[in-house]
Amino acid sequence: MNDRPIGIFDSGMGGFTVMRKVIDRLPDESVIYLGDNARGPFGPRDLAEVRGFALQIASYLEDLGVKLIVIACNSASAAGLLDVQRRCRVPVIGVIEPGARGAVQATVNRRIGVIGTEVTVRSRVYPRAIHALDAGARVFSRACPTLVERVERGEVSGDEVEREVRDYLAPLLRKGIDTLILGCTHYPLLQPLIARVAGEGVVLINSAEEVAREVEEKLMRRGHLRSSQASPRHRFLFTGDTEQALRLGRMFLGPEVAEVERVFLE
Amino acid sequence: MNDRPIGIFDSGMGGFTVMRKVIDRLPDESVIYLGDNARGPFGPRDLAEVRGFALQIASYLEDLGVKLIVIACNSASAAGLLDVQRRCRVPVIGVIEPGARGAVQATVNRRIGVIGTEVTVRSRVYPRAIHALDAGARVFSRACPTLVERVERGEVSGDEVEREVRDYLAPLLRKGIDTLILGCTHYPLLQPLIARVAGEGVVLINSAEEVAREVEEKLMRRGHLRSSQASPRHRFLFTGDTEQALRLGRMFLGPEVAEVERVFLE
Repeated sequence: MNDRPIGIFDSGMGGFTVMRKVIDRLPDESVIYLGDNARGPFGPRDLAEVRGFALQIASYLEDLGVKLIVIACNSASAAGLLDVQRRCRVPVIGVIEPGARGAVQATVNRRIGVIGTEVTVRSRVYPRAIHALDAGARVFSRACPTLVERVERGEVSGDEVEREVRDYLAPLLRKGIDTLILGCTHYPLLQPLIARVAGEGVVLINSAEEVAREVEEKLMRRGHLRSSQASPRHRFLFTGDTEQALRLGRMFLGPEVAEVERVFLE
Repeated sequence: MNDRPIGIFDSGMGGFTVMRKVIDRLPDESVIYLGDNARGPFGPRDLAEVRGFALQIASYLEDLGVKLIVIACNSASAAGLLDVQRRCRVPVIGVIEPGARGAVQATVNRRIGVIGTEVTVRSRVYPRAIHALDAGARVFSRACPTLVERVERGEVSGDEVEREVRDYLAPLLRKGIDTLILGCTHYPLLQPLIARVAGEGVVLINSAEEVAREVEEKLMRRGHLRSSQASPRHRFLFTGDTEQALRLGRMFLGPEVAEVERVFLE
């Protein structure tokens, strides 16, 4: 038994889609969520810089006493997962491998599409993770540079964003994909729109569900689930605008976001 | 829905430990089991040769109309999984990655031991698969060349094999491992003995359970579970001695092994 909280971090609000699934599956666990919205989005930045952010945030969370860290951000997982795992004493779970696994399980024609930020697509972590699970799969990737900022502004529907999604998906759909990885934790907030554009023949893979299952298994197998009978307590830490974080947090995560604290990492 | 059988193969009897878990979890599925006991054990052979066997057996099973192939043999997975996946039209599941995943989930001190055949240990597939999931884990491997033949002869207890197991495990236990991967599908048949030698502080990882779960998920997510109301029908194909296969099959798998067919691959 281990009553310490789980740490979850992202460049902003995208990680809420992962946190939602984690607390749905593990309602007794406390979570410390850290959104680095002062420096996010991470997508357009270069790998080494994002890796540095990931290491810094993970060590900050470890100092707060978390028992497990989820990098709920594809860009930060792509850039920094291996280094964070090497550096941290607690287990660290990223979002890439669980998403790749979900896609390999779901695809029938073994043609898998991936959409993500520029840094994620450039890192080629998805093709690598998919080929480690099925060397015969074909992978088609596309960076969607504008979508994270749309979500961070709360623009998750409407003609303009629909047109963008349509443009991004067109080349992947022409390749005959039957499975599409939402390779950015912000994209599940656009899922209804993406599903409509992709059409019924395409299964969408949102790694949040797979990550939540991995967190549960990891804690269960290690005997580290929370035992306290007291209600869990979540904390929401943001490095930038806390007002927007509170507003979008309620919209994207739910009523659990009662209060947002401002923190300074540097 | 898809009523075709699942194909499972091994160099001999070890794959029965995987088949047991698969049919326990999916009792409505039919299985074609192929044991290449004319050429097994694969462990002492070289990688390229084992890869060739794996490709040949997988294509034989595909021609028999299986809907999914499980390489229920660590040596063959280590040597041939990627090529078999590239070559086959149906999904192919190996035993390495599921075992690595189980170990990464179970370990607390992140010191993982692996025992396997010579070809498996030499291939370094386990350290690679483990580090892909936790770059900070330490992996200690040991080849146990005599154990497969012991199992193939039905010698799963007694002083002599216990002494061998003790010698094989000693250097790993000195490294302080808290998790040990049974990196050969024959070893679960020695599990009581290995558990006694390893002691209570070491969790044993038998990839059969993880593989069975992967098979279930794969079929479920693709909508390929068997729908027929008729009882499943299993077939047992062996390339060598069918009498021993029948005897040990009943001992290791159970009463499902009613009849063994001799097949010639070459």
